[in-house]
Amino acid sequence: MMTSGKTKLPSSVDIVVIGGGIIGLSFAYEAAAAGRSVLVVERRRCGSGATPVAAGMLAPVSEAEATLPGMVEFGLESSRLYPDFIAHTEADSGMKCGYRTEGTLSVAADRDQMEQLEHRAATHEELGLKAQRLSAREVQQLEPGLSARIVGGLRTEIDCQVDPRALSAALVVAGSARGVVFANATEVTSVELDPNGAVCGVSLRSNKESKGADSPHNRINVRNLVLCAGAWTPELIPELSDLPLYPVKGQVIRLRGDVAISHVVTSPDAYLVPRAGGELVVGASMEEQGFDDRPTAGVTMDLLGHAWRVLPSVYELEIAEINVGFRPTFPDHMPAIGPIDLPGAFVATGHYRNGILLAPATAKYLLAIMDTGEIPEVIAKFTPHRFAAARPAVVTTTMEIEP
Amino acid sequence: MMTSGKTKLPSSVDIVVIGGGIIGLSFAYEAAAAGRSVLVVERRRCGSGATPVAAGMLAPVSEAEATLPGMVEFGLESSRLYPDFIAHTEADSGMKCGYRTEGTLSVAADRDQMEQLEHRAATHEELGLKAQRLSAREVQQLEPGLSARIVGGLRTEIDCQVDPRALSAALVVAGSARGVVFANATEVTSVELDPNGAVCGVSLRSNKESKGADSPHNRINVRNLVLCAGAWTPELIPELSDLPLYPVKGQVIRLRGDVAISHVVTSPDAYLVPRAGGELVVGASMEEQGFDDRPTAGVTMDLLGHAWRVLPSVYELEIAEINVGFRPTFPDHMPAIGPIDLPGAFVATGHYRNGILLAPATAKYLLAIMDTGEIPEVIAKFTPHRFAAARPAVVTTTMEIEP
Repeated sequence: MMTSGKTKLPSSVDIVVIGGGIIGLSFAYEAAAAGRSVLVVERRRCGSGATPVAAGMLAPVSEAEATLPGMVEFGLESSRLYPDFIAHTEADSGMKCGYRTEGTLSVAADRDQMEQLEHRAATHEELGLKAQRLSAREVQQLEPGLSARIVGGLRTEIDCQVDPRALSAALVVAGSARGVVFANATEVTSVELDPNGAVCGVSLRSNKESKGADSPHNRINVRNLVLCAGAWTPELIPELSDLPLYPVKGQVIRLRGDVAISHVVTSPDAYLVPRAGGELVVGASMEEQGFDDRPTAGVTMDLLGHAWRVLPSVYELEIAEINVGFRPTFPDHMPAIGPIDLPGAFVATGHYRNGILLAPATAKYLLAIMDTGEIPEVIAKFTPHRFAAARPAVVTTTMEIEP
Repeated sequence: MMTSGKTKLPSSVDIVVIGGGIIGLSFAYEAAAAGRSVLVVERRRCGSGATPVAAGMLAPVSEAEATLPGMVEFGLESSRLYPDFIAHTEADSGMKCGYRTEGTLSVAADRDQMEQLEHRAATHEELGLKAQRLSAREVQQLEPGLSARIVGGLRTEIDCQVDPRALSAALVVAGSARGVVFANATEVTSVELDPNGAVCGVSLRSNKESKGADSPHNRINVRNLVLCAGAWTPELIPELSDLPLYPVKGQVIRLRGDVAISHVVTSPDAYLVPRAGGELVVGASMEEQGFDDRPTAGVTMDLLGHAWRVLPSVYELEIAEINVGFRPTFPDHMPAIGPIDLPGAFVATGHYRNGILLAPATAKYLLAIMDTGEIPEVIAKFTPHRFAAARPAVVTTTMEIEP
């Protein structure tokens, strides 16, 4: 389904997108649909990285609760774009993306957790959204498989879900149908600038061919470069190396069997996302410890324990996968979307826990910037330049220690 | 290292062993060392099945506690054979088998568990074996990585351990050095009898070649057949189909990292076996539910929880593998070793939780039976015929129900 590194590459394109995760794939598809010629360069294969580990909850309010108001607004906008985005993607690809609109059922196992749900309900109502408080009995009626210990719940109808694996696969097919070329297992080795210092070309190297000594390089003329390699984005070009982006490790478990719930169910400790075909996605840890990709005993034990307390039948489900992903985030937990100091180049990363949700809005506004050269108000706060102001001057001190 | 299904097969051998698990491999090696020509037929590959899932504790007393006295005696005998068995196997193969003799450290997390350890210590002493009671402080001194909550322990010096994966790999190499031929991915399709009704030949089919329509069959002249396919043994020939053998599913987790213990540590809930190279084997469940080979959320959660309570640093270890194996067992939890109703054929299976421990003694006595035609007293109680006496007569009743 996905094109291999042997794809014949064009000699010239409008846009090269580096990174075939959900952000890169969504942008490439939207840009191609708007008439641009686009090449996606992905060092592994499109749809890998953090994307297939994500659960795909589209929860602009509950997930963004602890962050800035601007994020809630942007999340709600992306959420509103989703039905159309899915409709086009499914139409162009002929594939389903697992988009579901049952809403989320948040449950509380005790009074303290019930207070947290009350707080969330109030936030929903402040935003003019519907939040339905449920008694223990109503929770049981809605999802009889849940633990009898649950004291109450909250149903938030704005929340939807999508299957990130299905969506990224469909975006590759839909993108191809619109003319996007995908170079998997390929890296950008250098960026060329024109006499004005603007991007005018890239050189690519196939990872598959590079096992030998001298692998051939492809040089491609390009006007715009979009850098969206997730947590690895600062490594792409020197202009981004100062970005304070870091990975937040997430461990997610996929269980298989008779899943016994139909809603997305969240508790303050874990989320449980039922998928078509008898799969239950249970997540997720939040660990700030670099690119350590080992699934660990402690997190697995804790996640399974949290899931089991909410849904007792979890005990008998099969462990199908234990996955690790790295959410790209900045210290303020807001993304960086917009032009950077290299003329012709743009960045789109740092979407933290909201990459799947924010993909359509990110694609839309990044394309608008390229069209107009102006930065829309709604994403002004996500400028990559916000860190430069806060960056402390580097002071080098030399201390001589007396022997 | 292991021979493939493309091995040139002999046209005639003394013994065909069906099943390349620890029992079949040990017998094949001992028989070849005693001068017999041997062919091992394994439908998957030698060293698969229950063998690589086993932890390899050699604990004749603690593991056999709940079973019959004859099993303790046989286990102790096999335990005494082990140093020589390992020495020969390592010499003939040039490989290490991970044989270690530090003894087992059994620990108690509370007074109830301490009483269980007292009972085990008494059993050890009745058998004339050393059992050293340890205070909480002494446990900490011996293994500082263990939880501070442990109230006491027991050190039983008879217990050893071996690495079942290393041992089965070495047995293949040592067996090859002694002339054993291994037919992996191969099944016995029929057994031929001479005019006296005794085994005289087998027909084999390669699983690798059988994907096409008509795969070639190999016919091999053979005097003795040894059936040791673990829990699948009754499926091999009609003469064994009545054996009340059944699988006991065991789930075992392999963790990787800084293991922090050097002894085998057991608690009443789990065992923790440290291996060379930073691996910790945590086991095991005991589930009687047929050949269901799914690793489940509940058992994984429980095993990790038990291990973590004994050894807190388990929390940070990597989950390297979650494996499922099927221990072959009879209702009395004793093995079946000896001749069956088909002249020339022998069975060796049903070793339950003690297959690794009992392999050398099983090989020794089965070979003695073939040599002498007599059944040694020590394994008389393991006769496969013990079930025939208890077998209830089948009564067929026809009931006509009035419409």
